[in-house]
Order: sequence, then structure tokens, then C-alpha cells
Amino acid sequence: MSQSMGARLETGITGLDSMLDGGFNEGRVVLVLGEPGCGKTILCSEFLHYGATNKNEKGIFIGMNEPQSRFMQEMAGLGMDFSKLEKDGTFSYVDATEVRRIPEQAKVGRIPVGGRELGLVNLMDMIQEAIEKHSPKRVVVDSISDLVFRYPKMEERRPVVLDLVETLQGTKATCLMTSELLSTGEGRLLQPEEYLAEGVIILRTIQKGARAIQILKMRGSKVDTHARPYIINENGIQVYATEEIY
Amino acid sequence: MSQSMGARLETGITGLDSMLDGGFNEGRVVLVLGEPGCGKTILCSEFLHYGATNKNEKGIFIGMNEPQSRFMQEMAGLGMDFSKLEKDGTFSYVDATEVRRIPEQAKVGRIPVGGRELGLVNLMDMIQEAIEKHSPKRVVVDSISDLVFRYPKMEERRPVVLDLVETLQGTKATCLMTSELLSTGEGRLLQPEEYLAEGVIILRTIQKGARAIQILKMRGSKVDTHARPYIINENGIQVYATEEIY
Amino acid sequence: MSQSMGARLETGITGLDSMLDGGFNEGRVVLVLGEPGCGKTILCSEFLHYGATNKNEKGIFIGMNEPQSRFMQEMAGLGMDFSKLEKDGTFSYVDATEVRRIPEQAKVGRIPVGGRELGLVNLMDMIQEAIEKHSPKRVVVDSISDLVFRYPKMEERRPVVLDLVETLQGTKATCLMTSELLSTGEGRLLQPEEYLAEGVIILRTIQKGARAIQILKMRGSKVDTHARPYIINENGIQVYATEEIY
Amino acid sequence: MSQSMGARLETGITGLDSMLDGGFNEGRVVLVLGEPGCGKTILCSEFLHYGATNKNEKGIFIGMNEPQSRFMQEMAGLGMDFSKLEKDGTFSYVDATEVRRIPEQAKVGRIPVGGRELGLVNLMDMIQEAIEKHSPKRVVVDSISDLVFRYPKMEERRPVVLDLVETLQGTKATCLMTSELLSTGEGRLLQPEEYLAEGVIILRTIQKGARAIQILKMRGSKVDTHARPYIINENGIQVYATEEIY
Amino acid sequence: MSQSMGARLETGITGLDSMLDGGFNEGRVVLVLGEPGCGKTILCSEFLHYGATNKNEKGIFIGMNEPQSRFMQEMAGLGMDFSKLEKDGTFSYVDATEVRRIPEQAKVGRIPVGGRELGLVNLMDMIQEAIEKHSPKRVVVDSISDLVFRYPKMEERRPVVLDLVETLQGTKATCLMTSELLSTGEGRLLQPEEYLAEGVIILRTIQKGARAIQILKMRGSKVDTHARPYIINENGIQVYATEEIY
Amino acid sequence: MSQSMGARLETGITGLDSMLDGGFNEGRVVLVLGEPGCGKTILCSEFLHYGATNKNEKGIFIGMNEPQSRFMQEMAGLGMDFSKLEKDGTFSYVDATEVRRIPEQAKVGRIPVGGRELGLVNLMDMIQEAIEKHSPKRVVVDSISDLVFRYPKMEERRPVVLDLVETLQGTKATCLMTSELLSTGEGRLLQPEEYLAEGVIILRTIQKGARAIQILKMRGSKVDTHARPYIINENGIQVYATEEIY
Repeated sequence: MSQSMGARLETGITGLDSMLDGGFNEGRVVLVLGEPGCGKTILCSEFLHYGATNKNEKGIFIGMNEPQSRFMQEMAGLGMDFSKLEKDGTFSYVDATEVRRIPEQAKVGRIPVGGRELGLVNLMDMIQEAIEKHSPKRVVVDSISDLVFRYPKMEERRPVVLDLVETLQGTKATCLMTSELLSTGEGRLLQPEEYLAEGVIILRTIQKGARAIQILKMRGSKVDTHARPYIINENGIQVYATEEIY
Repeated sequence: MSQSMGARLETGITGLDSMLDGGFNEGRVVLVLGEPGCGKTILCSEFLHYGATNKNEKGIFIGMNEPQSRFMQEMAGLGMDFSKLEKDGTFSYVDATEVRRIPEQAKVGRIPVGGRELGLVNLMDMIQEAIEKHSPKRVVVDSISDLVFRYPKMEERRPVVLDLVETLQGTKATCLMTSELLSTGEGRLLQPEEYLAEGVIILRTIQKGARAIQILKMRGSKVDTHARPYIINENGIQVYATEEIY
Repeated sequence: MSQSMGARLETGITGLDSMLDGGFNEGRVVLVLGEPGCGKTILCSEFLHYGATNKNEKGIFIGMNEPQSRFMQEMAGLGMDFSKLEKDGTFSYVDATEVRRIPEQAKVGRIPVGGRELGLVNLMDMIQEAIEKHSPKRVVVDSISDLVFRYPKMEERRPVVLDLVETLQGTKATCLMTSELLSTGEGRLLQPEEYLAEGVIILRTIQKGARAIQILKMRGSKVDTHARPYIINENGIQVYATEEIY
Repeated sequence: MSQSMGARLETGITGLDSMLDGGFNEGRVVLVLGEPGCGKTILCSEFLHYGATNKNEKGIFIGMNEPQSRFMQEMAGLGMDFSKLEKDGTFSYVDATEVRRIPEQAKVGRIPVGGRELGLVNLMDMIQEAIEKHSPKRVVVDSISDLVFRYPKMEERRPVVLDLVETLQGTKATCLMTSELLSTGEGRLLQPEEYLAEGVIILRTIQKGARAIQILKMRGSKVDTHARPYIINENGIQVYATEEIY
Repeated sequence: MSQSMGARLETGITGLDSMLDGGFNEGRVVLVLGEPGCGKTILCSEFLHYGATNKNEKGIFIGMNEPQSRFMQEMAGLGMDFSKLEKDGTFSYVDATEVRRIPEQAKVGRIPVGGRELGLVNLMDMIQEAIEKHSPKRVVVDSISDLVFRYPKMEERRPVVLDLVETLQGTKATCLMTSELLSTGEGRLLQPEEYLAEGVIILRTIQKGARAIQILKMRGSKVDTHARPYIINENGIQVYATEEIY
Repeated sequence: MSQSMGARLETGITGLDSMLDGGFNEGRVVLVLGEPGCGKTILCSEFLHYGATNKNEKGIFIGMNEPQSRFMQEMAGLGMDFSKLEKDGTFSYVDATEVRRIPEQAKVGRIPVGGRELGLVNLMDMIQEAIEKHSPKRVVVDSISDLVFRYPKMEERRPVVLDLVETLQGTKATCLMTSELLSTGEGRLLQPEEYLAEGVIILRTIQKGARAIQILKMRGSKVDTHARPYIINENGIQVYATEEIY
């Protein structure tokens, strides 16, 4: 079966690769959804770092949450030297932090354009430019929350997310995009992003503070859908793929 | 009793056919409701594939979520060769992805028409054209979410769903339509689709990540209404029809 | 006491009659509330069928959900031959499906009338005409959901439901009207229909898929208010009136 | 203490009188809140019937939910002969059902008045007229729901309820007013009526269908605030004041 | 530590004083939040009564819920003779019931003023006048609900509550203000009052009807934050400060 | 790893420093989120006090909730003498209480400016002025609730919080900002502040009144994410970093 599914891209996080039956399917767009501080950015960075270091696969990180310097420093603290990879040409950071500041009302030429549409168009352009320039095999967009939360009505939000997913699909790269959970605890509203992405991984805090990773969805893959415990330490994310959530 | 109910259409998923007391009743319109990644599309595809392969029954798949190529590739990975069936004339894919992009405001001739009404009309036309052309015995509409979520007010949404259900009933084929659950966990709001369809099957993730399938409703059938565990593997969906949800 | 309460109308569902202390009180208007597929229509049909077959009591079914042919076929599959009863003159089907299609804005003569008011007026007229024509002892309205859900504001919905209940009370027949539950699970919002009807029976799915029937309210009767398990099989609804819900 | 509290008015429901430490305090306005079919009207009627029969205390029932004939018949079935009491001059029924039908917009002379204000004014007038005419010692208003639900905003609803409570206080009679619960299950929104009334009794269905009565509040009384089981049978409400809710 | 905290004002409710580590800190503004009938007014009255009787400390009660006569009578029933204290000059009742009736739109001179602002201004004036006149050491405002519920938007409500709290702080007296809980059960929305007051005590009904008192917050004090059972009897509130809530 | 993370700033609360793996990372902006009375202000004050007393690190407290005198007195009661530190030049209090009073509509010169934007601008200016003047190593903003709650729409609130976080990041100091939880109990809505801050600590009351501290998030640190019990006594906050929440 694996063959017909196309090549797998390992994340380098052993337990997660095991849950994923080897890694992400090539060319898929996967949503990484999580609570604050649960390691969404770290998971995505490990995916890029592993590809660049072990597979010589080019990766780009489209960062909407922080400037490159902060990102670099953060990841260095977790043992990932992205400066070196950047020099080697296997990593690029695209600073997209301005997207989330685009004013509500802007103009394209003389035509007034709602700021949020502009934000979306800008992000799409950034993604496509970066892809053309770098031809990456692995892409991360961290995060889409500022963009999608501008569309509180579901009927408006669905086509926006759809546009984004299809832009990412068009790159042929394997793409992770992160997003924020809206609530904690048992039972939650499902977001349209979860249906429109081809895969969904969720990172949550469970009772008393332990953490759990779960693959909700992974089109074209036979994955382990059970929640598994994980920790974050100086080596990054460690998933205990054979342990139960107690 | 089974006789008076009309012929049964097996899904080919052994455990589910057992829960359904043999299969779907001919000519019924059934809603397949599920969380992201729970296999709504796979279930429907197996229904078509089994009919075409084992019963020589024509099937059509009206796809609003993905273009034909993605669908074909996905299902090939699960052992279903729809290309062959297409050549054999027992399968057709109707690409309806454009329906969910129809702008909010459009024009029919010189008359402005709300985009959402247009979307609905287009889908109805597509369904009817496809039926006339192919005279299928099995029909899948995957999914109706983009359409119905444009009508957040229940009093507007009910007639839309009703139109869709009656259009499908008019085809005389046995029809599955998929839709997205709005929330996870215990207790949920019921959707008008669940009342207007003649049958409802629900696919959910339960505690810790196991999956459960349940027949909420099946007009004209004596079915097993208990939730049963299932998994998705390289052979598709496996339902454990005699096991309890723990 | 039973005597002062007036005559009882048995439903023919043994367990339910036992819970009802013999049957419904003559002339009452009872709401049958339920989740999708829980047998609201079957329960009401058994009530009519039993009266016509065993008591020679005329019954009418005012159907807003499906045309007569579908209804007849459905019930035939459960062993109820309403065609025969129709020929015998003890059963009539009033097709009220058009009521739920009445456009939001309509005209009565030259006076524009809100479509929802028109829907209500039409249904009232249909009920009264049918009563005058058939003088039934048992009446079913299946269902009132399309009508009442047009009035999302409670202050508007109460008088509408009140009008309907009083119209039914005016017929002197014993009347069942069905309606849809809005949510599943523990705890729910109460609907004004539940307060305005003289009796309320609720049909729900409980944990893992078993079903429970409960009499919430039955004015003028001493009933069993505990939830009891039931199943639907080829003989219709079987209520286990002496069993506990586990 | 009891002395300083003023005289007690027994309800005649033994277990409830025990929970109330002898009965209601004279001159208090008490809210009887309950789910559909839980016996709000029966409780209030027993209160009037007991006073008239055993204490020769005049009572009036201001009925907004049903015409006098239905009320009389209902209560006769529970062994309360209000016709006799009416002839004896110890009971009067005030038909206030028209209040809930007052149109949203009405006119007082040539001045347009919001229908809901009119409804309130009418009810106040009815209450005061009835009091002047009958000088009752016991008063029931069944129910205030149609009135208060016209004011969905809390800031509008509070003064309306306040007016009503003070009108009732002004009568010097002991007054019960019934109202409808908005939801079932654990945890609920509190209504302003519960704060503005001087006492609150709640009637609910608990798990599996047993019923519980609880005194939430009783100004000037030392009451049992624990929920206690009760049933309704041919003798009316039976409260098991020494039993626990299991 | 106690010394640096300033003097303590005992409530006279032994168990509560124990939970409070001796009483309220002098000059603090404390919110007493509770369900209907849980004894908010009684708790506050005991605080005033104890101060006047045992410490010769002047107290004022600013009553928005009931006229003086009702208050006096209620408390007399619980063994508190406020008439005597009033004559002795250690107690004053300020009738502020009119504040909650101030019309939505009013005029100050020729300037139209929103009724709710007027209500707030009036209450402030009443408080300040009463303070200047009586120089009390203990102040109760019962309750602030009618005032704050006029401001359903949190951004409007915060400054209103802030004004009130600061007015009370300006009096240098120790002040209790009561308010109503919006819901029962586990988990609730927090109100801005709880953050803006310097202390918060909550009175609730727990499962089956037992009552619990809990100190959520008490700036400048080392208090027992555990919920403790209490009852209300003819001696007022009895707190079991060493018992657990079962 | 610790080295690459930059220097640690101990809080002086032993158990918390242990949970934080030594203290806060230098230059981080951390959100301290808590229920009323759970010690948000105390935690932040201990952080400043410890730095000034033990490390000779300058600290400023930007207080929006109370004037300096109240703050000083409160903390003195917990053994922290900020007056002395102020004289020593290692502590400054910035009174920002006026920010929360800025009217909804104000003018900058002749240009009308929404009051809430003005409030934000003023706070930013205050922070930057204070930083320039004092060059602190530790900064506390207590609290941001009045500011952020003026923006109930998430799409408006995100950029406001972002501006604030980036202003604080620009100071190079380690910054704590406090905010109020909106609800109690299991499961809650996540606030955008929690995603935009670099660290999040939460202080809650758990069942029956015990308190728990939990580190939800701490970018660049390997922390203990389990909830741990704590108490507040005359020595301030005591965290039991090795105990479980029962």
C-alpha cells in the first residue's frame, strides 16, 4: 500500500513517524492544531530540520508569528541550527509577520480592498514567490490563525481556507500549517480548517498537565488515530507512540 | 419483512451490511455524517466500488471536495481501481468542486441571483444531468457541507436540504450524501439534515482515538442502532459489528 | 380516578399503554418529541392503526414530511396496511407537504402576507377541513418542526404553537403531533411546545445506541415517568415498561 | 421564631408543609418553577383547595394557561372539586388566557402601546380587580411565562417581574406564581424571577425520570433546602420529605 | 502579619470569622455573591448587627431590594432587632429601592440623561450623603444587581463597577455589596465585579440542596479558601469552618 | 541547553522556579492568567521584590488596578517592603489606573480618537517612558484586562495584544502581564493573549477551594507543565512543585 501512496517524508520525530506509518505523504497539506505552548512550531521545525539535515531536502518556514531572529534563537535552544542550514541553502525563512498587521481597509491602486482580503492575497503571493525561488520539498506556514480569525462567519471562512489549502497543494511540496485551538476540555467545536486540510494533527494538554498528540485525519495513510503522550525537552518533541493516555 | 422493504444494496463492508440488515434499502437517501478524517469518503467509495465490481451496478460520485485525479489516487491507495471501472462504464466522477466557489452574488441573464441559490441550482442541475446521462443505481454526493453551511439560519436551511433530498429521491437511485459534524464530544446540536434524510450514519472518534460507527436512523429498515468500533486500513473500512464500544 | 378522566385510547403498543395507565386520555393533544430515526412516525401510525383495526375508530394522518405513497410503503413494511384501512373508511392521509414549501412572502388576494403566517393558516385550514370531512377520533400531525422552526424567537413561537394546540383541542379528537429534538446528550433546552401541549413523550438514543422512551408530561393521567427501553422491529415499537435504563 | 414570622399557611401537601416548617409565610410571593408536566398547577391548586376546604380561606386562581372548564376538569380528576368551592364562595377562577394573546402592537385610545406592556397592565388590572372583589387569602397566578418571555433582555425583564411581585405583595394575600424552566440537566441559568420572588420552589425530573422538589429560597422561614422525591398520583402530589434523592 | 494588615472587623458569624482569619480587613470592599435564597442579605445584616451590638460600631444598610419595613421584619425573625439599634443610633437604613425604577431615559434639568447613568449617579449620591450623615464603620449595599445588569456589555460594565467600588473605598468604611449569581452548577462565567472588588465570598447550593460558603478572594488577608458547609436557622448563618464539602 | 537559552531570572518562589527550570528566560513576555483572588499580583510582586533584593535588578510595576499606596500596603502585609526598594532605586511604581478610565471617545488635538485606541496608546507611552527612565530588568503590567476587554471581537483584539506584547519585547526586560480568566471549571475558551504571549502561567481554584498553578507555555524553556498545588500565606506564594493535584 505504501508504494501506491507515494513517497513518505519522515518528520524525524520517531514516535510520530511511527504513528504516521513512516511519515507524511508527499504533497499533502496537513494542519497542526494545538493549545498554546504545546509545541506546534517545534513540531514543524523538526520536520524541516530533519529533511534538510538527513535528506538534503529544501525547506521553507513562512513565519507569521515572529521575526526570523526569534525563531532562529528558539530553535537553536532545542538543538536545531537553522543558520547553518540557511547558509547551506537547505532552509529559508520567509518573514510574513506583516500580513497580520495589514489594516482592515487598504487600497490596491485606486480600488479600496478590505484589509483581510489583502492579507490573504499577500500571503498567497508570498507563498508562491517563495516556492518559485526556493523549490522546497517541505513547507511550513506558522500560523494561519491571524488570517482565518478575521473571518468569523463560517460561510466566509471556508472559501478562504480552501484558497489557502489549494495554493499550498499547488506547490507540490509537503506542507504543514499551524492553527490555534479555540477551547480546552472535552468536546469542542470543529473548525472548517480541519475538514479542508488533508491531514490534521492535534496537540493538547490533558488532565493535570500531561500532553497528548493525536492524528485526527491523514488522507491516503493508514495511521494510528489514538492519542499518545509526548513531552518537549532539550531534544525537542518525544512521542511515546506505544503508550496509552491514562 | 425484507421483501416488502424492496431490494437491498450491499455496501460490501461486511460489518456495516450486517448492521444494516443486508444493506441500504433501494432508492433511499442516506446522510453519512462524520468528524474530519473518519472515512466518510471511503465509506461512500466502497459502496460504489462494490456495486460496480460485484453487482455490475453503475455508480456516480459527485465530488465537491476534490478533483477527480485526487479522488482516484486516494482510492487506489485503498485498493479501489476506479479508473478501470470508469473505462468499464460502471463508474463516473462528476467534478462539482466549482459549486463551492460560486460567488455570493452572480447573475442569471440580467437578473442578479444570490450566489448561494445559484450554487444550489447548479448542483441540482449537475445531479440531474449526470443521472440522465448515466442512469446510475448508486449515487454519492461528497459533501453537502459547503452548500448547507451557507445557510446558517435553520429556517432557510431546511428548505434547501429538502430540495436536495427530494432531487436525490427523484433519481430513484440509492444515494449517499456526506456532511461534516460541527462538534466533538458528548451531546451535540442536531442538524436539519439528520431529520430530512431517510437514513443517517455517523462516524466519530471516541475517547482516546478509537472510532465508532452508528446508524442513527434508517427508514424502512430494522437496523442495529448501537455504536460499533471500526478501523480504516489498506482494505478500507472494517466494522466490528458484534463488538461493543468500551 | 380513571373514570373521571374520561375514556382512554389505547395505542396498541403494550408497554406504552402500560406506562400511560391504559392509553391516552380522550381529547388530549400530545407532543411526541424525538431524535432522528427514533420512531416518532411509527409510534403515531401504530396509534392510528390500532384504533382503526381494533376499535373501528377513524383516524387521519396529516403528513408534512412525506407524500402518502412513501408513508404507506413505510408502514406496510412494519405490518400496517393503511391502504386497506383507507378503503374501509377508517383512515385518511392528508398530504400537507406543501405547507413547508410556502414561500416566505406570499399574497392573499392583493394583501402581502408573511409566508410563515400563511403556512400556519394553511395548516389550520387543512386540519379543520379534514376534521369536518372525516370526523376522526384519532389525529396525527407529523411533524410541526418545519412550522415552528420558522419562529426562532420564543416570544413569537409561543402564540403560534398555542394556536396550533388550540385548533387541535377544538377537534375533540385525541391528537398526536411530532417534533424534532434540537440536541442530544444530558441536559437540553426546553421548547415552548413542551409546555403548551397537554402531554409530552420523548424518544431518545442513550449511550452506545440503546433507545429510551419517557413520558415527561400527561395532564389528567397518572403515568409512569421513568425512562424505559424500547426497540423497533418488524412488529413496530416494543416498549419494555418494567425494565430500567441501565 | 415562628411567631415573629407571622402565621403559616399550610399547603395541605404533608411532606411539603414539613419541608416548609409548617407552610408558607403569610403574605409572601412565592415562585413555583418547574419542567413540563412536573405538577406546578397541581401544587398550586392543592394550596387553594386545602385553604378553602380546611381553613375556610378564600382563594383565587388567575389562569393564563387554560380556560376554567379545563382547569376544573383536570383538578376534579385529582379529587379536588372546585365547582363546589366556587358555589360555596371560597374559590374563584379568573380567566386571564387572553393576556397571552394580546397583539404585539395595540392601541390605548389613539395612543399605540406595545402589546407586551399592555399585557402586563391588563394582568395587573385583573389581579387587582379580582383581589378587590374577592378579598382572597390565597392567590395563584399560573403562569407568568407568557408574560416574562416577551422580555428576553434581562435589563427589561427585571422591572416587569418586579412590578408583578410588588402588585402581588400589595394584595396582602399569600401568592404563588408559576413559571417554566428553560433547560433540564445539571447547571442552569438563573432567572431574575428567582431573585425577585420571596420564595422559590423548583420541580424537576432527575435521572431516569424520578421527580424532585426543592425549596431554593423562602424568605423569613427556616426550611429544608434539600431536594426530596415526590410523585403525583390520584391524590395529587406526595412529597417524601425524609427521603434522599438517590 | 495581622498587624500590618490593619484592624479586623468580626462578622459575628463564628465559622466565617475563623475562615477570614478574624474578620474583614478594615476599609475593604467585599462582594457577597450568591444564588437566590442563600442568605446574602442575612450575612450582611449579621455583620452590621454584630458591629452595632458588640462593638458599638455604626452601620448603614443601603437597600435596593426591599423597603425598610420588610427588612426589619425579616431580620427580627432571625433575632436581630434593628429597630432598637436604629433608636440607639448605631444603625440606619437607606431606602434605595427607587434606584432600580429610574426610567431608561430621564432628564437632569433640560439635559436628557440615560436612565441607567442616572441610576448610578443617584446611588453614588445616596451612598455619599449617608456616609457624611452617619459616619458608619460598616456599610452594606444590597444589592448591586439591578444596577450592573443594566450594562450587559463587559466593556461598559467594568467602569460602572469600578466607580461603585471606588466610591465605597472612599468612605473608609468596611463595605459589603451583594450580587446575584447568573448560573448554578459546575463551571461558570466570572463577573467583572469579582475582579474589581477587594474580596469575594460566594454562597451556593451544592448537590441535593446542601449549602456551601467559599472565600474566593480577600486582598490583604490569609484566608481559608476551601468551600465549607453552612446552614441558616433561627440564629442566622452557621458556618462549619472545619468541615469538608462532601 | 540552559546556556543557549540565555540567562534565567529567578522568581524567588522556590517551587515555581523549580517548575520553570530555574526561572524565566531573560527578555520574555509572560502572561499570568488567573481567577479572582488567586494571587496574580502577589506572584508578580514577588518576582520584582526578589530581583531587587537578591539580585539588585531594577523593577517597575505598571499598575492599572490600584494606586501605589494600596499596592504598597498590600505587599507590606506579605513581607515585601517596596517603599525601601523605591528609596534604594531598585523599584518604581507607575500609576496607570487612569488608562482604564479614558472615555470611549476622546480627542487628540482636533482629531477625534476612539477612547480605546487612546487607552492603548497611553499605556504604550507610559511603558516606554518608564523603561527609558528606569532601564528596568524586570517589568510587570497588572493587569491588561481593562484594556483587552474593550475589544470583544477577536479579530480586533489580536492586533491590540500583539502591539502590547511587541512593545514589551522591545524593552528587552523580562515582562509579566496579568489577565483575568473568563470562566471557572473544566474546559474554557482560550484567549488570544495566551497564543501571543511567549509564556503563560495559570492560577486557578480547583474543586472545593484548593489552588493550582500550571505552566501552559514557556517558549525556549523546558518546564514542568503539570498543575501543582500552591497556597498563599504571610510569606506569599508557596508552590508544592513535587506534589500532584488530587
